[in-house]
Amino acid sequence: MAQTAPTAEFKLFVPGPVEIDEATRSIGARQPPYMRTEAFSRFTLDIFDGLKRLVGTSGEVVILTASGTAAMEAAVSSIFDAHDRVLVIDGGTFGRRFVNLCEVHGVPHEVIRLDPGKDLPMDLFAAKVHGGRFTGVLVNAHETSTGALYDIQAMGQVLRGSDTILVVDAISSLLADPYRMDDWGVDVTIFSSQKGLALPPGLSFVALSSRAAARARALPRRTLYLHLGDYLKDAERGQAPYTIAVGIMLQLGHRLAAVHAVGVDRIVADCAARAALFRAGLRGLPLEVLPERPSNALTALRLSRPGLAAPDLVRRLSDQFGIVVAPNAEPLRQRVFRVGHLGALTIEDVKKVLAALRTLLAGE
Amino acid sequence: MAQTAPTAEFKLFVPGPVEIDEATRSIGARQPPYMRTEAFSRFTLDIFDGLKRLVGTSGEVVILTASGTAAMEAAVSSIFDAHDRVLVIDGGTFGRRFVNLCEVHGVPHEVIRLDPGKDLPMDLFAAKVHGGRFTGVLVNAHETSTGALYDIQAMGQVLRGSDTILVVDAISSLLADPYRMDDWGVDVTIFSSQKGLALPPGLSFVALSSRAAARARALPRRTLYLHLGDYLKDAERGQAPYTIAVGIMLQLGHRLAAVHAVGVDRIVADCAARAALFRAGLRGLPLEVLPERPSNALTALRLSRPGLAAPDLVRRLSDQFGIVVAPNAEPLRQRVFRVGHLGALTIEDVKKVLAALRTLLAGE
Repeated sequence: MAQTAPTAEFKLFVPGPVEIDEATRSIGARQPPYMRTEAFSRFTLDIFDGLKRLVGTSGEVVILTASGTAAMEAAVSSIFDAHDRVLVIDGGTFGRRFVNLCEVHGVPHEVIRLDPGKDLPMDLFAAKVHGGRFTGVLVNAHETSTGALYDIQAMGQVLRGSDTILVVDAISSLLADPYRMDDWGVDVTIFSSQKGLALPPGLSFVALSSRAAARARALPRRTLYLHLGDYLKDAERGQAPYTIAVGIMLQLGHRLAAVHAVGVDRIVADCAARAALFRAGLRGLPLEVLPERPSNALTALRLSRPGLAAPDLVRRLSDQFGIVVAPNAEPLRQRVFRVGHLGALTIEDVKKVLAALRTLLAGE
Repeated sequence: MAQTAPTAEFKLFVPGPVEIDEATRSIGARQPPYMRTEAFSRFTLDIFDGLKRLVGTSGEVVILTASGTAAMEAAVSSIFDAHDRVLVIDGGTFGRRFVNLCEVHGVPHEVIRLDPGKDLPMDLFAAKVHGGRFTGVLVNAHETSTGALYDIQAMGQVLRGSDTILVVDAISSLLADPYRMDDWGVDVTIFSSQKGLALPPGLSFVALSSRAAARARALPRRTLYLHLGDYLKDAERGQAPYTIAVGIMLQLGHRLAAVHAVGVDRIVADCAARAALFRAGLRGLPLEVLPERPSNALTALRLSRPGLAAPDLVRRLSDQFGIVVAPNAEPLRQRVFRVGHLGALTIEDVKKVLAALRTLLAGE
């Protein structure tokens, strides 16, 4: 058995897990309590309030012990079935994940396919919606594989007044970009512990408007573990149907208090400042920002001159500087990599990444 | 927001989460690393080896970021479908969970229903198996709701030489009771982080024999998040298809090294000693051990005289002594409660529970 884990002397600039502040980390060393108690139910009800303030909803929220993909699957399989017809925005890995979920669960769907980094043309979206009789729209606020941020507020305006359920994967956007669930007319918001919340991975969340929750309560179970109807029922008394990741819940309680103490807008502004500083510092380097409309969560960069391949650059940043950035999967693997701005990072950290890139790309 | 969580001054005698030793807890305060690296893949491959030694298999193992129920669902939905016919042993809450999973996923099934705490008569099981043409058997090694331990070794002998896939939920039994996956002819073993492994909840595991893995690889996806075929594929290179609970993985690496350093048999023997001491100390108290064949993991106790109800006793143990034991759900709620022996507990801890029970039940 490995006695040691690969943790030391690295700083994370990836879309998750991200750097965690010391106070939050230290809570990870606590003994998790038993969760089937009134005290833990009260603690959980407080957490629900904090989560709802985070996304800006007066609706309901449930907590899954699982990754963000599970929360996406819970939303799709608990809210839609073969009688529905949904429109999916597919601009990369996570848009395709929504498509795959529709396929696996037999939800009829149409896809708007976007090239990597391209924005969603709102006239195209409006034309599709008005001609399509869709009961749902599935979109990633931030397509994490390309750094593209879609205009959820504008999409909500297009759908306003309709019966169409707007489902938004805000996993890698929340606390990096502005987000207003109720104000923008979003019905379902999916998010996770290890992105803007800067907690360890293991918890994911689904916030639901009253009409989305009504659908989830009415549909029969497609799965046991991902059936939101059961979670909504138990959430009323501050519980979850299955054993929750109690340790991360303790960290979540602390973190929500800390976030709301400074304010969500301030957290977003700080992340935006790191992203802006980083992008301004790229001038003169053979790197192009990939997306037309980038999220503050990360910057996806394309190497604009032949030479060093992206996987080599990613490895050298790690080996020589202890700077961990994210590689891309195919088809962008050779030319694209991503530098994250989420989590407990400072302006100094951003400058270090820029300096390292300058050094490594000096000869390019 | 709650600033504090319900953690202080309690000791856990529940089936999970359990008491975690200090060295393992302290690793929970570390910064989780990025998992899409070669270093983390190597770390994960070592963990797979440690997990396989734990259950005693030369087969394969996958890790889910989820509770034990999700691992049960992954096994049922990835290995069986409408062409199968499975036999389920239902002696309580977790046996019924297997029944529910068969219902939700359309797996034809027959049920052996056992009264709370009753052992499985092996002649009944053999008669069912030999007359039933079952392609699978689903059983909880330890039915956690009643404390009953079924004889998995004997069940394996009945099935030996057949094509029937034996699926064992060993979640609350592993590291409390002896377990030999390959020797006993078990095809699938389901277990979790927060029981005998004494880690925080958030990770669950499925170990598979080669024929069970072949089934999981061949069946089409019923879900995305719980499809074992995808996990088996990514496990070959030490990865998981979706973001894993990296923080708990670090603790798991440490814990597996510690368990194998002293030996699985020693951990089991220590838990057995705590269970035996506790049960011997019950003499003279108005409490009866519920199951005919109890697991070492916990003791389910029935109040044998009218008077104090079980929920009141559970609350007084917590309020007056900081001793957290587990209540039961209906229909056993009023008369039954459970005292756990899993985790970082000592003989002194066991004596404290006995002394507290003596005090509270003195007037009964």
